[in-house]
Amino acid sequence: MNAAKMLGRLPVSVTLIDRRNFHLFQPLLYQVASGGLSPGDIAAPLRDVLSRFKNVQVLMAEVTGFDPANRRVLLTKGELPYDTLILATGAENYYFGNDHWAEFAPGLKTIEDATEIRRRILTAFERAELETDPEKRRAWLRFVVVGAGPTGVELAGAIGEIARDTLRDDFRSIRPAEAQIQLLEGARHTLPLFAEDLSEKAERALIKLGVRVRTGVRVTDIDATGVSLTGASATPERIEAHTIIWAAGVRASPLGRNLANALQTPTDRGGRIKVTSGLSIEGHPEIFVLGDLAWFEQDKVPLPGLCPVAMQQGWYAANAIKLRLSGKVPPPFRYNNKGIMATIGRASAVADLGFIRFGGLFAWLAWLFIHLMYLVGFRNRFLVAIQWGFQYLTFNRGARLITGKDESK
Amino acid sequence: MNAAKMLGRLPVSVTLIDRRNFHLFQPLLYQVASGGLSPGDIAAPLRDVLSRFKNVQVLMAEVTGFDPANRRVLLTKGELPYDTLILATGAENYYFGNDHWAEFAPGLKTIEDATEIRRRILTAFERAELETDPEKRRAWLRFVVVGAGPTGVELAGAIGEIARDTLRDDFRSIRPAEAQIQLLEGARHTLPLFAEDLSEKAERALIKLGVRVRTGVRVTDIDATGVSLTGASATPERIEAHTIIWAAGVRASPLGRNLANALQTPTDRGGRIKVTSGLSIEGHPEIFVLGDLAWFEQDKVPLPGLCPVAMQQGWYAANAIKLRLSGKVPPPFRYNNKGIMATIGRASAVADLGFIRFGGLFAWLAWLFIHLMYLVGFRNRFLVAIQWGFQYLTFNRGARLITGKDESK
Repeated sequence: MNAAKMLGRLPVSVTLIDRRNFHLFQPLLYQVASGGLSPGDIAAPLRDVLSRFKNVQVLMAEVTGFDPANRRVLLTKGELPYDTLILATGAENYYFGNDHWAEFAPGLKTIEDATEIRRRILTAFERAELETDPEKRRAWLRFVVVGAGPTGVELAGAIGEIARDTLRDDFRSIRPAEAQIQLLEGARHTLPLFAEDLSEKAERALIKLGVRVRTGVRVTDIDATGVSLTGASATPERIEAHTIIWAAGVRASPLGRNLANALQTPTDRGGRIKVTSGLSIEGHPEIFVLGDLAWFEQDKVPLPGLCPVAMQQGWYAANAIKLRLSGKVPPPFRYNNKGIMATIGRASAVADLGFIRFGGLFAWLAWLFIHLMYLVGFRNRFLVAIQWGFQYLTFNRGARLITGKDESK
Repeated sequence: MNAAKMLGRLPVSVTLIDRRNFHLFQPLLYQVASGGLSPGDIAAPLRDVLSRFKNVQVLMAEVTGFDPANRRVLLTKGELPYDTLILATGAENYYFGNDHWAEFAPGLKTIEDATEIRRRILTAFERAELETDPEKRRAWLRFVVVGAGPTGVELAGAIGEIARDTLRDDFRSIRPAEAQIQLLEGARHTLPLFAEDLSEKAERALIKLGVRVRTGVRVTDIDATGVSLTGASATPERIEAHTIIWAAGVRASPLGRNLANALQTPTDRGGRIKVTSGLSIEGHPEIFVLGDLAWFEQDKVPLPGLCPVAMQQGWYAANAIKLRLSGKVPPPFRYNNKGIMATIGRASAVADLGFIRFGGLFAWLAWLFIHLMYLVGFRNRFLVAIQWGFQYLTFNRGARLITGKDESK
């Protein structure tokens, strides 16, 4: 979307193809999953964002493949020629070969994922209230989050707050604060991308919210009644739980593999396409690959799949096209890392800006500000700011609706 | 919910059973269907609304039937005894015996209905943009609303505004304003509950929004490609359209028939249960039936299924219980009709307050104010007011997301 917005100002004809009719601000998706925000608050209709650029056409369509020799994109119905192709189809949930886990442990990639996770979290408390058998009730009040990257940490923290604050006075037969939340991580620390002292800060904040942080464990199975895992001690263990959320792995979108196969281009283990210093495919300067789909090494380290990386790459690609139009050669891409941050809960976050690392209230305020700033659309920023204000003052989360199919029927 | 809130202040033990975990403010549901508001804005979590009443327990459960002889409510799992039962399970869409029409012409009763109608309206424009065949494109840009009560009028008006204002600059291959919107009504006028001059005002306002109002027509069939109808001239006609919305009929919820059968109590054609002057079932003063489920005649006219009727009946039932607790006999119920209103679009509505009838801007402002006032929860009121403000200033609708299953795949 950043590339399309910049290209909208150039003397070029742009077609933006997306399966969905909106741009989704992924970093706040966990707040939809935890009932704090509505889907409409973090999504901006693509047509609305791009309507002022008359040279940009938006098509809601599904790309099925590519014909790079003839420079064509193949759609479900018909095809579309291009001079330059920008591919940024992102990543999807990945279960390391155990696709059948998806049913029991949804990941958090789409609006539908978020409302489904919200449904499961809220339904668990409702079922616990109805349940008279203490053992079964405990299983409904046990929540497992697999993967302690930013998404996993944010979700586990949010469930902790829901149980301790939001729902505190809402039930009569159960005490929501008795909920057990387990955060499982294969690495030695939570937030593996962060420095060790910040990981430890985050762990302490999670523990305060009632989250049990378990690092160095490996999930061996997930089914309808719980999670099986092996720990550092190699003793197999079983957690009986109905609400399991997957935040452990993503993989490049299948369209990436599709294109890589067609061009015989290498991909990394996660299916990301190897790109040149100019973010295009070797031998195909007319094909840019950006964001979670691109395997780009900077200082010999692959760039992580983060929002700022994708945004800077979008700007770069549009600028490279602009330079080429005037016969210039674009400089190589370089990611300007302004820092990484993750939030754990109310007044609690960690931030690593490179030259300084900090946590607590100030990191949280910085997190709030930066996420509001990068959210697309003034209306959305305003609505999110207001809802955060209400949530801060009242501990309440206003969008806790159980919608969609009801398993209990 | 009104009854539960009042009973929460009395020395009684209250259990509120609902299939859903939220209270839905039905009068604004069409604004979710037309992308103006998010579901979370017009829904309030029941537990949140009632949490301060410690004598009220909320159960998210499904009632399957009743055992009135033993004063028990039967649930999917288990049963629940009662001294007094208040039944207010409302109405559902009714297709006059043509249930197979539901697939092609969804009605507007639930949050899921609203997001599905939103998906269909927005997808129609997207499909038209992709379509190259002019005839097929016209079918995508043809919208049919069946039934010109308040919901049908509001939806048709909203689609008119979406096509003329919201989407004006958003497409490149189609002109959204070319959309054809037809509003079909079996009666001689739109808004049959309203006085004739207001019906005519509403019709003129609809025509200005590009809606073709067709009264005195009868729908004979609905399928995936359109609507068949016969008019006053009795000439069968066919409208080719992909987006058809049902706003023509509702029927009392099946639980009403269930209870009426168990008690051998009469119901009206719409399945509503005949109630006494005290809103209870003849011979069963301990069973109140309220809202869309109750057949109550006042001055020999049955009360319509409107929000204010249900709210006043909820207060009445709680008050009747209060009076009985102190040995008093409750007075008969009497509906205090403060008026009816319907909105057509921007700065356009009609209102009939009994002593005065008016339309236009003033009616619209009154409509906005009253609906904000009756919306449950300060947060929701605030968020809706802000979004209405944005919508008024920018003509934009921020929640136009296409979510859920995608038929085009």
